Amino acid sequence: MLAVVTDLRIPRDRSDDYSAEAIGARQEFLAAATGADQPHMRHFSLDPQTLPGNIENFLGVAQVPVGLAGPLLVNGEHAQGEFLVPLATTEGTLVASYSRGMKLFREAGGITTTVLDDKMQRAPVFSFESAREARAFGEWLTEHFDEVAAAAETTTTTGKLLEIQQFSVSKLLYTRFNYSTGDAAGQNMTGKATFAACAWIKLNYPGELHFVLEGQFATDKKTSVVNMLHTRGKRVVAEATLPADLVLKHLNVSTDKLFAARLKGQLGSIMSVTNNNGNHSANGITAIFIATGQDVANVAESSALYGFTELLPNGDLYVSVTLPSLIIATYGGGTGLATQREGLEIMDCYGAGKARKLAEIIAATVLAGELSLGAAVVAEEWVQAHDDLGRNRP
Amino acid sequence: MLAVVTDLRIPRDRSDDYSAEAIGARQEFLAAATGADQPHMRHFSLDPQTLPGNIENFLGVAQVPVGLAGPLLVNGEHAQGEFLVPLATTEGTLVASYSRGMKLFREAGGITTTVLDDKMQRAPVFSFESAREARAFGEWLTEHFDEVAAAAETTTTTGKLLEIQQFSVSKLLYTRFNYSTGDAAGQNMTGKATFAACAWIKLNYPGELHFVLEGQFATDKKTSVVNMLHTRGKRVVAEATLPADLVLKHLNVSTDKLFAARLKGQLGSIMSVTNNNGNHSANGITAIFIATGQDVANVAESSALYGFTELLPNGDLYVSVTLPSLIIATYGGGTGLATQREGLEIMDCYGAGKARKLAEIIAATVLAGELSLGAAVVAEEWVQAHDDLGRNRP
Amino acid sequence: MLAVVTDLRIPRDRSDDYSAEAIGARQEFLAAATGADQPHMRHFSLDPQTLPGNIENFLGVAQVPVGLAGPLLVNGEHAQGEFLVPLATTEGTLVASYSRGMKLFREAGGITTTVLDDKMQRAPVFSFESAREARAFGEWLTEHFDEVAAAAETTTTTGKLLEIQQFSVSKLLYTRFNYSTGDAAGQNMTGKATFAACAWIKLNYPGELHFVLEGQFATDKKTSVVNMLHTRGKRVVAEATLPADLVLKHLNVSTDKLFAARLKGQLGSIMSVTNNNGNHSANGITAIFIATGQDVANVAESSALYGFTELLPNGDLYVSVTLPSLIIATYGGGTGLATQREGLEIMDCYGAGKARKLAEIIAATVLAGELSLGAAVVAEEWVQAHDDLGRNRP
Amino acid sequence: MLAVVTDLRIPRDRSDDYSAEAIGARQEFLAAATGADQPHMRHFSLDPQTLPGNIENFLGVAQVPVGLAGPLLVNGEHAQGEFLVPLATTEGTLVASYSRGMKLFREAGGITTTVLDDKMQRAPVFSFESAREARAFGEWLTEHFDEVAAAAETTTTTGKLLEIQQFSVSKLLYTRFNYSTGDAAGQNMTGKATFAACAWIKLNYPGELHFVLEGQFATDKKTSVVNMLHTRGKRVVAEATLPADLVLKHLNVSTDKLFAARLKGQLGSIMSVTNNNGNHSANGITAIFIATGQDVANVAESSALYGFTELLPNGDLYVSVTLPSLIIATYGGGTGLATQREGLEIMDCYGAGKARKLAEIIAATVLAGELSLGAAVVAEEWVQAHDDLGRNRP
Repeated sequence: MLAVVTDLRIPRDRSDDYSAEAIGARQEFLAAATGADQPHMRHFSLDPQTLPGNIENFLGVAQVPVGLAGPLLVNGEHAQGEFLVPLATTEGTLVASYSRGMKLFREAGGITTTVLDDKMQRAPVFSFESAREARAFGEWLTEHFDEVAAAAETTTTTGKLLEIQQFSVSKLLYTRFNYSTGDAAGQNMTGKATFAACAWIKLNYPGELHFVLEGQFATDKKTSVVNMLHTRGKRVVAEATLPADLVLKHLNVSTDKLFAARLKGQLGSIMSVTNNNGNHSANGITAIFIATGQDVANVAESSALYGFTELLPNGDLYVSVTLPSLIIATYGGGTGLATQREGLEIMDCYGAGKARKLAEIIAATVLAGELSLGAAVVAEEWVQAHDDLGRNRP
Repeated sequence: MLAVVTDLRIPRDRSDDYSAEAIGARQEFLAAATGADQPHMRHFSLDPQTLPGNIENFLGVAQVPVGLAGPLLVNGEHAQGEFLVPLATTEGTLVASYSRGMKLFREAGGITTTVLDDKMQRAPVFSFESAREARAFGEWLTEHFDEVAAAAETTTTTGKLLEIQQFSVSKLLYTRFNYSTGDAAGQNMTGKATFAACAWIKLNYPGELHFVLEGQFATDKKTSVVNMLHTRGKRVVAEATLPADLVLKHLNVSTDKLFAARLKGQLGSIMSVTNNNGNHSANGITAIFIATGQDVANVAESSALYGFTELLPNGDLYVSVTLPSLIIATYGGGTGLATQREGLEIMDCYGAGKARKLAEIIAATVLAGELSLGAAVVAEEWVQAHDDLGRNRP
Repeated sequence: MLAVVTDLRIPRDRSDDYSAEAIGARQEFLAAATGADQPHMRHFSLDPQTLPGNIENFLGVAQVPVGLAGPLLVNGEHAQGEFLVPLATTEGTLVASYSRGMKLFREAGGITTTVLDDKMQRAPVFSFESAREARAFGEWLTEHFDEVAAAAETTTTTGKLLEIQQFSVSKLLYTRFNYSTGDAAGQNMTGKATFAACAWIKLNYPGELHFVLEGQFATDKKTSVVNMLHTRGKRVVAEATLPADLVLKHLNVSTDKLFAARLKGQLGSIMSVTNNNGNHSANGITAIFIATGQDVANVAESSALYGFTELLPNGDLYVSVTLPSLIIATYGGGTGLATQREGLEIMDCYGAGKARKLAEIIAATVLAGELSLGAAVVAEEWVQAHDDLGRNRP
Repeated sequence: MLAVVTDLRIPRDRSDDYSAEAIGARQEFLAAATGADQPHMRHFSLDPQTLPGNIENFLGVAQVPVGLAGPLLVNGEHAQGEFLVPLATTEGTLVASYSRGMKLFREAGGITTTVLDDKMQRAPVFSFESAREARAFGEWLTEHFDEVAAAAETTTTTGKLLEIQQFSVSKLLYTRFNYSTGDAAGQNMTGKATFAACAWIKLNYPGELHFVLEGQFATDKKTSVVNMLHTRGKRVVAEATLPADLVLKHLNVSTDKLFAARLKGQLGSIMSVTNNNGNHSANGITAIFIATGQDVANVAESSALYGFTELLPNGDLYVSVTLPSLIIATYGGGTGLATQREGLEIMDCYGAGKARKLAEIIAATVLAGELSLGAAVVAEEWVQAHDDLGRNRP
């Protein structure tokens, strides 16, 4: 209980002050307020002058351990060759397990990756007096797409409005404004552009309308069926065919046993109604996100996954994962901060033109991790591995 | 492209070596392999000897900026009084927005928090030759609950098996072994205990059976309806009644306008089919998770949210969030690492007996953030705020 | 137990024989096989010569009681004025309850109805060796839309291929071929047309591909999020604003109490995860479907519903239902049979050009029933009504 | 347009008059009002005196053609031997297709059926001032289960309250009162019993509470995940292992091709988010429901299906369907009406003690239909079959 805090306040109007003095004042305030000191948080090498736009009320850093997984052999269109993958996590076994998977796929010739789609949304909802007015507006919106796009694009040099999807219900029209956003994740860019578009619409539509800029149809920071069906961020596939003997050698389980277990897992996924019929994509994705300065809250939606596996007549196993809503950036946001940029550079993924490359590396990493954990469960090595490397240690 | 990497390997058998020598070797290997140096990652104050059980192939840290939000006034059963909340993020505006919400609720008398449930699962699936055999096993399992629990509990001093839920389909029986796990998150504890329970079952069941330790009915690191309905981790509510004038003063929007927008957002959530009929719980949860050493991958399921709001006849607004699958720990895992422990200590949440307190603080933080963002969207201040504080900066 | 049946068979090759002799033989066979006679099933006035295309192994009819609800006042674009609605059901209270709702809306000025969309799908899935091949095919398909449409439309005089939606995953491309189908429901028409389209594609695509004509993305006879988002059959809205005093007079409940209950029902719908955040649309829809010769199995998807309700500042209640996947016909299928055609004619809905009119009447009927049941639950009259009129009778 | 209807009304107070005079008056009213006569609806053999409790404003019947499928060989616990199954439908091909499937399974030794669970719900939601009060009530409710059950059971001689499930959120407690209901479907019985239970609770709970009798957690007439997970009505499995050669002989497709298509269908089901990863259960279920006097609106939830299929190493195919929310009765409701009773008697399913038998026959019928249609699609015979037997006829 913090009995003394009541009298102390962090002034709102200085929240964006990144001077050493302001930081020091906050640190002292915090130590005084809580009676707890934060020497480790104060231990950082990043330059606070890089922080505007990334954080307010800055007082220090969280040090998250980074381990190295790999080499990961990727046969992508944007990522080609072997990569060492930095994983920031505190979950024991994770790095080792992903590395085990990467080794298997490397021996099998690597993982093929393909970016299927790439776009970012903002989803205003428009409301009217009746369904017919909403329908009429939908038709008008289709007819005036070019002008709406022009209005949206006044706010951005890189974003392009690709399409406006319409979902009508009652006297409301939910929309999804779909943009290409280059190498930025683009949530803010699309917010600003769509706001401008809506302002233009409100001014020019020859009828009464109201709008709310987000009608929960882009589900930012939230996973949804709409985003999984229609893509948010990158839609990327990682796939490979694994020879039966290699699987047995590396994972201590036969492919038919693995496939039989997967069938049961599939039904479990259907019955429990998850956004992910795989094993643990969030583990690898989160660890890369923290290491590379992504907006980690996007794990909520980026970890959504469609898995598809076939047991071939010869016993080999076709395996694939599709990440339908992977939201990443290689510049902007947190990507330019000190360690985050280093994390990207390890994979040569920093800066413009690298976002799809990073997407491919992430998808391949996820696939490696899916096989490794899936096999550990079936081979009944899972608990043992956590005893050896993880938190089960006494 | 990493042309030279092909010849380099991180030896698996040294992945758990945390000596300065081993760490240095990895750093050099990485720098040589990639041609990129990582001076900032190497800049850390944590003691590598604290890392076993948390990471393999350790080579440095990610420095994630921490900002301070608050004070947050919580009227909980475990958290009482004002708290300063450390948020580790690189998303500009986030800390400021949460702080704005906290200020509003503080003036309104604080946020009431209640932990409704608390349990952790492992979910083996058992398979048989026919549905009748599966049904017979289900009955046997119910009858032998005490012995199964005893077998499970041989592996843990703190975990208790509370209940085994059964979900039958075809010739399969999916189960959820529900445990209390004290202040640990408990995923590994329950894995180990359930593995022991299954071994006992296999030995003692007078019939043929096969099992897979996880049938995707606990959906670890994956959000699911089952976990939202039946709780995974903490089920915690934050609620308050906000006077109409305070909302207008702090958020620049009337409560009836806010409520009208929420109705549309609700329908959007239903149509887009999300696990979260709120705004952006993942933002606050992720930031606290990183700052306090939680397993951040759990954001995938921990960010699930049920919101419930009522506009009272006098114009005041009852607001609440329920987090049905909030997975946290206050000891074990990453919570004892250098900055992570400091993050917990800021809120007096480190160590045994603090997990429900932390759950309450997180839920209250989420509620504050829901109102702040929700109002910003309706008041059309959202884009401007990101222009001022966030990544929209040129 | 039917001890004697083992030796008897209904010859497959005579299943489509509708002569009096064949029908009589089946009836005798059945009576002999089961020891049970079916005098009532044999009592029918329909002409068996109208049955080819509707049933095989015909032996008689089910007599389903029809009650009359109404008058229903509809302010539609296709249905205008008052309608009497035939409801075929065996659930007591149903006709009375719908009629009660219709009376309320009539006094309130009627129900406004709007058809928002109208299309039918078949959804082949195409499979390839890799994701890239699937992606390439998707592009080819877009480029060759006109030729694909021409191939599809060779099989039908009324169907038009409007659009092919693509949903890519792994090495597969799921599609939805969207057609306009006139006044037929169109499931068979679209199946035949899409089969022809796929044959053309297979012949002309300069690469290897396999297809299955239905990849579960049109979910015929099954409700799905895809169909609710993107329409299957008619997407139709019924809406009205109900004065507070009229609601109280007819339904014995105040609008604010009704709205408060609805908020709780909404959250219940979200948590239980239904395809219908209303009350009982299936009741009215099924009853009209049986009475008018619709394919009643389509109730599975046609009963999906989005409800949206607002409590206005003056206490009046805006209410609406949107049926996003209402599958109906006014000619073809069972609509031309004896009583079924009479059912349609009661509403002047038989024959060409009437399908949207019927859709509007159904939507209005559903809305009337929603209010009546919703209010009965809140007013605690529900149980009593079933005691008076339904199966609770001793 | 019914210009003359405006002046005519069906008097509400005579809606439950089943005399020949009242029926005749309604028929005349209808004919006069619409200018359309209904000679076929008037042609019925049922005795109107059997209709009270089943319909109001009765004026005649819908004649729905019935065809006979079978013999269906069932190896159930309640249904044993061969059955002829009456199917009331107007969809051509349906009876023939189900019969084809039944023939295959008969040669394969029949279908094994198992009822896994059997219960009916009503789901009141209780509301309070705060989450803590809701939690306290939940504990009180658990403690007073016996008294609540006693109160509920005062209203019924056959229903027993088995369990009250609790789902807490915000300041609300959603419950599911689970009952055994004998051979009645039980929706009204459980409504009445739960209303009595709630009255007792309101009287005896030492605190303030409000309740609404249905909180959308039993989702009557609506499919839901909750009902699929936790059973509504009967939970029944039909399963069999099909020899590869028999499948090829009867269905013209190899089991591996069938299985490969099913994998794709599974993923399609996951992506489109249906309540049914099978093909067309609603077809068979609806046809039996109409023929046997079930409440056909229950098709909305009864058609929910979990399918599970395995390709065995020898090429044989294990197939199964689980219907988790099959709602049926063998007495009460419409089951005693003229043709409806005959429909039940054909399968020796009329009266007390027969409900599980009927459930098994329905599940077996569904399984037969799943294989027949699934194979027709893969064998590319589907369109042709509809050309031959169905509505594709010119």
